[in-house]
Amino acid sequence: MENVTVFGAGSWGTALAIVLAENGHRTLLWTHREDQANEINIKHTNKKYLPETILPTELTATSDLETAVDHASIFVMAVPTKAIREVCGNMSKTLNKKALFIHVSKGIEPDSLMRISEILESCLPEEFVSDIVVLSGPSHAEEVVLRHPTTITAACKNIQSAEKVQDLFMNGYFRVYTNTDVVGVELGGALKNVIALAAGISDGLDYGDNAKAALITRGLAEITRLGVRMGGNPFTFSGLSGMGDLIVTCTSVHSRNWRAGNMLGKGLSLEEVLNNMGMVVEGVRTTKAAHQLALKYEVSMPLTSALFEVLFHEKPPKVTVDELMIRMKKREIDNLL
Amino acid sequence: MENVTVFGAGSWGTALAIVLAENGHRTLLWTHREDQANEINIKHTNKKYLPETILPTELTATSDLETAVDHASIFVMAVPTKAIREVCGNMSKTLNKKALFIHVSKGIEPDSLMRISEILESCLPEEFVSDIVVLSGPSHAEEVVLRHPTTITAACKNIQSAEKVQDLFMNGYFRVYTNTDVVGVELGGALKNVIALAAGISDGLDYGDNAKAALITRGLAEITRLGVRMGGNPFTFSGLSGMGDLIVTCTSVHSRNWRAGNMLGKGLSLEEVLNNMGMVVEGVRTTKAAHQLALKYEVSMPLTSALFEVLFHEKPPKVTVDELMIRMKKREIDNLL
Repeated sequence: MENVTVFGAGSWGTALAIVLAENGHRTLLWTHREDQANEINIKHTNKKYLPETILPTELTATSDLETAVDHASIFVMAVPTKAIREVCGNMSKTLNKKALFIHVSKGIEPDSLMRISEILESCLPEEFVSDIVVLSGPSHAEEVVLRHPTTITAACKNIQSAEKVQDLFMNGYFRVYTNTDVVGVELGGALKNVIALAAGISDGLDYGDNAKAALITRGLAEITRLGVRMGGNPFTFSGLSGMGDLIVTCTSVHSRNWRAGNMLGKGLSLEEVLNNMGMVVEGVRTTKAAHQLALKYEVSMPLTSALFEVLFHEKPPKVTVDELMIRMKKREIDNLL
Repeated sequence: MENVTVFGAGSWGTALAIVLAENGHRTLLWTHREDQANEINIKHTNKKYLPETILPTELTATSDLETAVDHASIFVMAVPTKAIREVCGNMSKTLNKKALFIHVSKGIEPDSLMRISEILESCLPEEFVSDIVVLSGPSHAEEVVLRHPTTITAACKNIQSAEKVQDLFMNGYFRVYTNTDVVGVELGGALKNVIALAAGISDGLDYGDNAKAALITRGLAEITRLGVRMGGNPFTFSGLSGMGDLIVTCTSVHSRNWRAGNMLGKGLSLEEVLNNMGMVVEGVRTTKAAHQLALKYEVSMPLTSALFEVLFHEKPPKVTVDELMIRMKKREIDNLL
């Protein structure tokens, strides 16, 4: 049994902490909010993020970063993508031993075009990082806490570290596959949010299941095309962290990105949508980053380009979809890679 | 503009005939039921299959097979899989010129293990078949007749024939991609029904979106594994006729195979389900064929094998899913091909 600290007590961080605690690991959950840490320790609930769930009594929480860092040498990073640099910066001040970092965030930083593991590498002291493992796949937290069957991928260049993460999390309802393709797993997780926005737009236009399936399929094709150019394995994109996560995100009304796209499809402006949501829509930032990546790597990404025009140049969604449909006739496979 | 006859006036045959007629082709629809032909010619409706749709007046129908064969040298075969041998046998009696056959059926014959194009080849006179093209992809007929954007793949070993089919059907809402991988397109279309049954079972057990996404993803992985062994191109299975059609079938409550699986998941026996449906559930036959193919080609297909046990040996679905979840820990990509 291991000591593990999970940073970030949102729904996903909390769900993963529950899995770890249930597997017998001494698990500590860090949150920057003291009242939330108290709620977890005293009431064994986290009402804001998992309103229906009773947490295991073995699972404890702290809002003290030094305590959190001292507790373990395995860290699960489940803070919002935008907070990673700040939290890692603060962790670095007290870190004094080699640790394994597992991250579960999804995104690509616009302009720097860094993946999450690259951001972690850049803001953690190299001598204290034994490995960085990304954990990603089709996994609504709400279903994991109900112990519904869930599968996920743990990826690290060093397969032993991926297998260590597999051993930590795997149980009868949480099945972990390993992979060494960090680039592919991170890109799949980030770029699916772009396609989820597009799928939401299609549904907002009432275009139906045929159109949405086409968007998902052709969307994965262009993600794969970019990912392979950036060094990913094409089969990773057909796996759990690619296709699997894409399907869950595009077909669930719980997906924030799908909901934002849906409002765009119904005619709201991006500004209205973001005001309406009142929270970060990761896919908007990622669309900008994906558009930049497509230009940098000279890869054709027609859906991403179209979505970029809708989001940032106010092109009407319906015109955009109709233009996509009448593009030059294509052979399917030439176009796939 | 071409003369085209569509054989089979179910929802899909009728929808394709509408697309062809709208594209300006002289299109004749054959049905074995004279009253249905009269309804189409006089009332311009096909109430049983497309209750909301008004057919173009240019679209005519006949129940006379000789008239249907005489009308064209491009034939779209849209009869139920089980009726193909009989209809082709009857067509052969009057066929006296080379014709292009386009088929839209999905299935594999148990025991003979023949794909649809192989069945067509075996029961049509070779000298009168110029080429056989398969047309397959994520396409609910109900959405096509509403002119909602739809994409589909036309596959033929001879790319010119696939391009001819692309030209026939393509318009502003119906986008056709070409492919030369007939094996891959036909297997994808047939085997998705096996996974749709499994997805229905998972939903019947209330296992949620994570589990279903895992089934779809791992299901496509094993379909790809078998398909590649049988000579298909792995990228075809990531395309519209593979992944695209799989997504539509597994996430739509309109899918017959999903509905049958759903009832199995809720505890009904196969016999009860089939009585309840009152019509053919293609995925049941295809599961048997897929199980035979897995044995013949020595390919590991854990989901198909599990479903075979549920359907034909009354193994409880819940036990089966739980066993799948605790199988040996795997690397994701080793397992994919």
